[in-house]
Amino acid sequence: MTRDEQQRKAEEFLALHTAPELLVLANAWDVCSARLFEFEGFKAVGTTSAGVAATLGYPDGQRISLAEAVEVVRRIVAQVRVPVSADIEAGYSESVEGVVGSAKAVLEVGAVGINLEDSTGDPARPLYDVAQQTEKLAAIREMSDSAGVHLVINARTDGYLLPSDDPARRFHDTVERANAYRRAGADCIFVPDMGDLDKDTMASLVKEIDAPVNVIAGATTPPLEELEAIGIARVSFGPRPMRAALALVRKIARELRDTGTYAAMTAETLSYAEINEMFADRSG
Amino acid sequence: MTRDEQQRKAEEFLALHTAPELLVLANAWDVCSARLFEFEGFKAVGTTSAGVAATLGYPDGQRISLAEAVEVVRRIVAQVRVPVSADIEAGYSESVEGVVGSAKAVLEVGAVGINLEDSTGDPARPLYDVAQQTEKLAAIREMSDSAGVHLVINARTDGYLLPSDDPARRFHDTVERANAYRRAGADCIFVPDMGDLDKDTMASLVKEIDAPVNVIAGATTPPLEELEAIGIARVSFGPRPMRAALALVRKIARELRDTGTYAAMTAETLSYAEINEMFADRSG
Repeated sequence: MTRDEQQRKAEEFLALHTAPELLVLANAWDVCSARLFEFEGFKAVGTTSAGVAATLGYPDGQRISLAEAVEVVRRIVAQVRVPVSADIEAGYSESVEGVVGSAKAVLEVGAVGINLEDSTGDPARPLYDVAQQTEKLAAIREMSDSAGVHLVINARTDGYLLPSDDPARRFHDTVERANAYRRAGADCIFVPDMGDLDKDTMASLVKEIDAPVNVIAGATTPPLEELEAIGIARVSFGPRPMRAALALVRKIARELRDTGTYAAMTAETLSYAEINEMFADRSG
Repeated sequence: MTRDEQQRKAEEFLALHTAPELLVLANAWDVCSARLFEFEGFKAVGTTSAGVAATLGYPDGQRISLAEAVEVVRRIVAQVRVPVSADIEAGYSESVEGVVGSAKAVLEVGAVGINLEDSTGDPARPLYDVAQQTEKLAAIREMSDSAGVHLVINARTDGYLLPSDDPARRFHDTVERANAYRRAGADCIFVPDMGDLDKDTMASLVKEIDAPVNVIAGATTPPLEELEAIGIARVSFGPRPMRAALALVRKIARELRDTGTYAAMTAETLSYAEINEMFADRSG
């Protein structure tokens, strides 16, 4: 992919954030899952840091090395044609330079978007200060401008992942961070939650945040058409598809162990031909 | 792992082939699936070449590079404590030296077993000559002896993957190959099939083959306890668990696309804590 092709792909990806239709971004953890989502018609794929970490044997939370995370992105970009957005967690560094380096590394292997979260991983101080986070976002935007590729920055703010006894305050803080991140150069604001972000609050976030809003969907989330109706721009799924797949593998394992049969393994499957077809025209 | 520890693990793995209980070898395609099988109590894990290839974006059939295949084995060995057997297809080479090099490469990253198949990948001449295959097996055994690690060689013979209008001839040829492979140094004989290897034929293979016999289980295979009862020593599953997981991912993708809901994604899942627990004490 030339830099020009990458820039066109980045613009195409950015445009999906302001299109009337909800952008549904499936989260992949390896090349196969990414190709499968593309094959089924998804217009873009993201990576899931927790999923990528697990496939390589790491717990989530920046235990994987940047080089390993980038290598997975490189492989996915090489095999899918839709835009790929890389989850780079909090940028694998405390410093602005380090975070920019991480964003640059995924841009250089062909990603046209990133997720950057404001969680520190430190329970005593769970979120980076707004000033620190906006400095990183602005520096990434500058790097992206210099590179000639508009890296679509999905700035994640994690207040709804933290316990709160003051919902109004949490809402206010999230909106404040979101708009600051937008002013610093973010293209989309991602507000993940643990299942307690209700539809009315989502609609209020859309109203108060001066940018496209990304939410994560799970068991208690309204269906996609309702998310679209209230103005959500982008929805993703984090590691949930990967965890569901793992739960099936566990079920297969337990059935083998406990009853010695193969029902869970054979009820639904992709044929050898179907899997090979997914890769036939892309490799080598 | 020191060479001595590896040799103890290889001996432990070899002993599982002659124990009264059936050895149930789950096939992993990444570190996460390998850890999950170990976590659920499996005594050993194998890799599935088709599964590993797919996760990295290749069709099956030796399109992946040896280095990439070895790297996956290395990662799995580093994270699981049970014996790991590596599927090295036909050895990623036509030459004896090349095939030995592939076996040595996985031994050096800690595998204590290999699968080596006699399929050529060439429809005009689907199986290597017996003399060619036994030369490779003998050379691997010699390499393994020199290394001081008894690499458990699971010699796969692929007659039951080919169409046949002469079942008696196919049976005879399979037994002949199996016993030749055993004499050349194989520890176990793997006879994969496409679902038409019935219980009586399996029992006859066990009787005629002078080595532990490995079959692959699928929808039409008798349950594990029946396999044990007829004297099968080892059962594996190839890419079937991985393909079942992919079929679920496809179902999730299609539900998102067609109805915009999340039932398939959320019906059964592994929690974040469960996944992190699988890796917590192994990484770093």
